[in-house]
Amino acid sequence: MSQVVPSPLYAAIDLGSNSFHMLIVRHVNGSVQTMAKIKRKVRLAAGLDEQNTLSEEAMQRGWDCLRLFAERLQDIPGENIRIVGTATLRTATNADVFIRKANQILGYPLEVIPGTDEAATIYKGVAHTSGGSGRRLVVDIGGASTELIIGEGFEANALTSLKMGCVTWLEKHFRNRQLTESNFIQAIEDAKQVIRPVLQQYQKLGWDVCVGASGTVQALQEIMLAQGMDEVITLAKLKRLQNQAMLADHLEELEIEGLTLERALVFPSGLSILIAIFELLNISAMTLAGGALREGLVYEMITELRQDNIRERTIKSMQSRYQIDDIYAGQVANLASQLFQQCGGSAWIPEPQSEMLLRTAAQLHEIGLSIDFKTGGQHNAYLIQHSDLPGFTRAQRYFLGELTRRYRDTLTSLPEQHALSSTSGKRLLRLLRLAVLLSHRRDQQLVPEFVVTADKEKLTLSIDLQWLDNNPLTKAELETESNRQTDMGWPLVLTEK
Amino acid sequence: MSQVVPSPLYAAIDLGSNSFHMLIVRHVNGSVQTMAKIKRKVRLAAGLDEQNTLSEEAMQRGWDCLRLFAERLQDIPGENIRIVGTATLRTATNADVFIRKANQILGYPLEVIPGTDEAATIYKGVAHTSGGSGRRLVVDIGGASTELIIGEGFEANALTSLKMGCVTWLEKHFRNRQLTESNFIQAIEDAKQVIRPVLQQYQKLGWDVCVGASGTVQALQEIMLAQGMDEVITLAKLKRLQNQAMLADHLEELEIEGLTLERALVFPSGLSILIAIFELLNISAMTLAGGALREGLVYEMITELRQDNIRERTIKSMQSRYQIDDIYAGQVANLASQLFQQCGGSAWIPEPQSEMLLRTAAQLHEIGLSIDFKTGGQHNAYLIQHSDLPGFTRAQRYFLGELTRRYRDTLTSLPEQHALSSTSGKRLLRLLRLAVLLSHRRDQQLVPEFVVTADKEKLTLSIDLQWLDNNPLTKAELETESNRQTDMGWPLVLTEK
Repeated sequence: MSQVVPSPLYAAIDLGSNSFHMLIVRHVNGSVQTMAKIKRKVRLAAGLDEQNTLSEEAMQRGWDCLRLFAERLQDIPGENIRIVGTATLRTATNADVFIRKANQILGYPLEVIPGTDEAATIYKGVAHTSGGSGRRLVVDIGGASTELIIGEGFEANALTSLKMGCVTWLEKHFRNRQLTESNFIQAIEDAKQVIRPVLQQYQKLGWDVCVGASGTVQALQEIMLAQGMDEVITLAKLKRLQNQAMLADHLEELEIEGLTLERALVFPSGLSILIAIFELLNISAMTLAGGALREGLVYEMITELRQDNIRERTIKSMQSRYQIDDIYAGQVANLASQLFQQCGGSAWIPEPQSEMLLRTAAQLHEIGLSIDFKTGGQHNAYLIQHSDLPGFTRAQRYFLGELTRRYRDTLTSLPEQHALSSTSGKRLLRLLRLAVLLSHRRDQQLVPEFVVTADKEKLTLSIDLQWLDNNPLTKAELETESNRQTDMGWPLVLTEK
Repeated sequence: MSQVVPSPLYAAIDLGSNSFHMLIVRHVNGSVQTMAKIKRKVRLAAGLDEQNTLSEEAMQRGWDCLRLFAERLQDIPGENIRIVGTATLRTATNADVFIRKANQILGYPLEVIPGTDEAATIYKGVAHTSGGSGRRLVVDIGGASTELIIGEGFEANALTSLKMGCVTWLEKHFRNRQLTESNFIQAIEDAKQVIRPVLQQYQKLGWDVCVGASGTVQALQEIMLAQGMDEVITLAKLKRLQNQAMLADHLEELEIEGLTLERALVFPSGLSILIAIFELLNISAMTLAGGALREGLVYEMITELRQDNIRERTIKSMQSRYQIDDIYAGQVANLASQLFQQCGGSAWIPEPQSEMLLRTAAQLHEIGLSIDFKTGGQHNAYLIQHSDLPGFTRAQRYFLGELTRRYRDTLTSLPEQHALSSTSGKRLLRLLRLAVLLSHRRDQQLVPEFVVTADKEKLTLSIDLQWLDNNPLTKAELETESNRQTDMGWPLVLTEK
């Protein structure tokens, strides 16, 4: 039996303008595991006066919070700790007073990082937790600053930190706490003014996908899911939320399904900034990043995790964590690809992500066996849907869970999902089941010769009859599977090759 | 990242008198993982005539089934395969005809094992999958034989295989398929006749606990759970089921909540044998074993798994599988024991298993973090309740899951459980939460000096105030916890030491 060696802890502390956060993680077997999260809403930015002097009270709130953090820091090796301050501490004229005492409390130096460093670290946090290829625009709306980054892979090409955030915009444009149209118009217009100087540079660089990070975007996604929308953020949805918000006269009366009390205060200001960004940069769709500043700090410390293919790393880590036979899993994935191509590839299943999703399902379809054999499919779904899988969106995780829930035995139709069309989902499920069935002998040498063809929903599997007679278990299982798929209205015809 | 090496497969095939079974497993990291289970209800024993000659039809059913098994066997190393035949093949005068062709189909030799070997292997299967100390009586009711074994640890002291089983008793005493009282009386009396010759030997050896294995006992437990009873089988419950069965005139009309169609035919005969055993051996309570013959065959092949403390092995295997910090987990367990003893030990929580359960919960309370931090407690419960944990009963697994679901954060009361009294369950939960809280710094050196005393439901925790002032996070968490427990009506008072 292999002995478990406790892996060292890492801490990333971020003294934000709205909240202070401490994240404690371990590095286990190629993945980062969260061990503790502590958050206090210090609202440091609210303590800045007209002259950018931090009030004594705001500093006191900060120091009190740091005393809590300091207790946990004692148990973590110094080289595994990073503590950063951002916009408010960059701005405050008396920041040195705060920092001196903070260092004393923490026992480790607090670094106030420049805006471009903050942007670069955020980009690392996003790149390590979000999959997909192509050029990426990252938007992170903080308490007192907003970062815009363009990058590709792990390389950032443009880094900007703008001096506006959901706390400062609240104080500037919603000081009277009225949710009037004119307040929104002002807030959006002013945000556009701040963005305009970098607009041309960003337009020129261009991007393929847009990713949002941090509280404002996270709150938006939670609202959309609570209201039954899908996870993609669009300008139309943002405008709908603005209209919902304007139904309340006062901030105190704001009621939006899915909006938590904790985020309510800075919701209209954050929303205004995001609308400005969408309109000015002409963004069609934005998804939520898996991580940002704190995750970036962690990945800067754990250098072993720098790897190009996030999805590959995630799959390997899951396979290793649940100790599945990864060679076999790879064979099933290859067989699934072969079926996919024989059926016509993207001519039959058009979404560009579909083969990747099919292969991922094949590579993970046995993780549930680590819990129990009989209900293995159920456990696949549970593990995939509840785990943080860097590189996969929430909709993809849900879909992968539902696919692998049904990889064998009884066949039921897939529930509604937003990863791809329901027809494509169904087709992928059929291919996954066939790939698993045809490789149940667990040896690539023992897979029969076959050809599968697809004509809309009708699949025809031609297979050597002599081989089938010599392999009666496979034959019996294929016949059962043909009945199951056909009973669902998805004809699967077996013919002699 | 550690590379996953696929571990070799093992196959155990058991040609029983009622069903043929094939079990395929892998040995992964100190535990046995089921990869496939194939079962066909061949009902070989029903093919024996008065002269103990197996009919051609019955043999044909057997061979057809073996052809399915043979396909999977090709992929498994020969030394990892065991194929055994039991009572019917011991009895059949023409068994050699069956065996010759079976060997040809399988490509590996079928061993027809003597009754005492069968009993010895069953005992190994039970010993490797059931925890607890003391002398154990094992009862396994098969299709054509019933094994009675007494053993301790991995050592069997008495091995008996009796010539009666649920298929043969069906044909002998329920041939008319009538569920009359006289049929039951005859079946029970006749079973007692078969047992009597060994009665004295078993009474003399004696035992502390009684464990039942295989289909009949499993079916009984399923019925009890479906009918809302707890998992312990008693004579009173068996008699209740006999009365329920007699409400139907014919076997075909038998309807008992929780009884599956598959087991219905041999249910009255199996029940009669079990009642005879309970009455004659004066058994007060029986629980279900985690495994029997097939598991015994597997554990005979995988010699690395021979270890004395099943529970210890199970805990280590879970810790390793979910890659938790086992040193820390051990510290929490020790702290929990310390709290348990300070509160008065068994004077406060009387059930003998309670400290073991508390320590187990402490040792496993972080496995859920491998899935996700935020909902870690929920994942603890899921993993523990769905995994096969050799050495723990189903009720204990359920209880451990509910304890570890609540190890931190919000406190809710435990649901009804059958591992120990609800008062004891609640007290263990309080101690577990305190142990986790007091060791949240993850370093034994950093646990404060404390003394806890219990007076019925009131806990008083005396702790050094100076220490608390220097550790404000622990202080804040202890105060929150004191409020949480007190709000539940379980006063937790913090005082200065």
